[in-house]
Amino acid sequence: MVLGKVVGTVWATRKDEELVGMKFQIVKHVGLDYKLKDTFVVAVDTVQAGVGDVVLVTSGSSARQTTVTRNKPVDAVIVAVVDKLDVVD
Amino acid sequence: MVLGKVVGTVWATRKDEELVGMKFQIVKHVGLDYKLKDTFVVAVDTVQAGVGDVVLVTSGSSARQTTVTRNKPVDAVIVAVVDKLDVVD
Amino acid sequence: MVLGKVVGTVWATRKDEELVGMKFQIVKHVGLDYKLKDTFVVAVDTVQAGVGDVVLVTSGSSARQTTVTRNKPVDAVIVAVVDKLDVVD
Amino acid sequence: MVLGKVVGTVWATRKDEELVGMKFQIVKHVGLDYKLKDTFVVAVDTVQAGVGDVVLVTSGSSARQTTVTRNKPVDAVIVAVVDKLDVVD
Amino acid sequence: MVLGKVVGTVWATRKDEELVGMKFQIVKHVGLDYKLKDTFVVAVDTVQAGVGDVVLVTSGSSARQTTVTRNKPVDAVIVAVVDKLDVVD
Repeated sequence: MVLGKVVGTVWATRKDEELVGMKFQIVKHVGLDYKLKDTFVVAVDTVQAGVGDVVLVTSGSSARQTTVTRNKPVDAVIVAVVDKLDVVD
Repeated sequence: MVLGKVVGTVWATRKDEELVGMKFQIVKHVGLDYKLKDTFVVAVDTVQAGVGDVVLVTSGSSARQTTVTRNKPVDAVIVAVVDKLDVVD
Repeated sequence: MVLGKVVGTVWATRKDEELVGMKFQIVKHVGLDYKLKDTFVVAVDTVQAGVGDVVLVTSGSSARQTTVTRNKPVDAVIVAVVDKLDVVD
Repeated sequence: MVLGKVVGTVWATRKDEELVGMKFQIVKHVGLDYKLKDTFVVAVDTVQAGVGDVVLVTSGSSARQTTVTRNKPVDAVIVAVVDKLDVVD
Repeated sequence: MVLGKVVGTVWATRKDEELVGMKFQIVKHVGLDYKLKDTFVVAVDTVQAGVGDVVLVTSGSSARQTTVTRNKPVDAVIVAVVDKLDVVD
């Protein structure tokens, strides 16, 4: 999984019918210090993550292993809201 | 999913028989400001996206989870046309 | 899919038995101007692509969705020979 | 698989129900000299790896091929603790 | 598939039980001139590749399509030992 921070939402009326009702969050990648990187991914939200939340994003076929995304054309999903990191660097 | 902008079309007569009838769009990656990046992907269109449209592209095995692409040798598909982004950076 | 140009062939006598009889083409990535990049991938050919041809390469599990590559340990396959690109940049 | 070193743990109360009970380790990528790189991945631990351990991480759908992660929305898993590398460079 | 050169072996006693008996080779990526790059992958060997051999590595779910790796948590496998490259650059 990768670590990111929700910074916004994508609005899309015209989309694959399998995606209707899903929330597409914009997740910027962050470092272990929560500092934003320049890269981002658009991920379906399954844990009610809001803007500002630090989250874990699962990608690829594993992104379809949730109740919301099963068999859907989705390749990134927010699977957890991070409380904190314990890092011994 | 990644964010991109349709900038053109690929024409290919000789191709795998499973791909006949599909439309291959050239999608340049864009940032949250819709500015074009140098990288691009060729994606099958399932939502009638046209040149200039900002879109979401699903990759990998998830790209085969649409009616058009199921069981096809396709690893990227346009799944939505973006209306707008709400970004709180 | 990614865009590339066939620049050569890999010869390998000792290989997984599932790969016997396949043709392994060396495909350098190209830009929309067909200019060669430094990176490349080795892909199984299913459309009789020859050296100099600009092609589309499908990667990952989708590379196994052709008659030639089904259930084989192959992660990249040439699925089309490109005639031309229409690009409105 | 990629080589990494466990440098910490992610704590997340709110998460997909399929992930309850899993341990999420922060794994920084390392070179063959075990020197830490800047990049990292969050991986589920299945071999009781602890902070400081050099490990192998399996990604993608293959990350779901363990008893702990089968059918779960997990895309990275620690599959081995490395004793040593024999490198002839 | 990617092109690499076997430069060593990973030793790991503590590992997922599905991996017992597999040989983990360290494969540095190489260019078409066989020059070593800085990046590497750890791949399961199925073709008795030895140190110094130039090989093809298959990644992702396709890495599980060999007799040795089927249904195993393995995301990279050596599928061929390269005899030579014919390159017309």
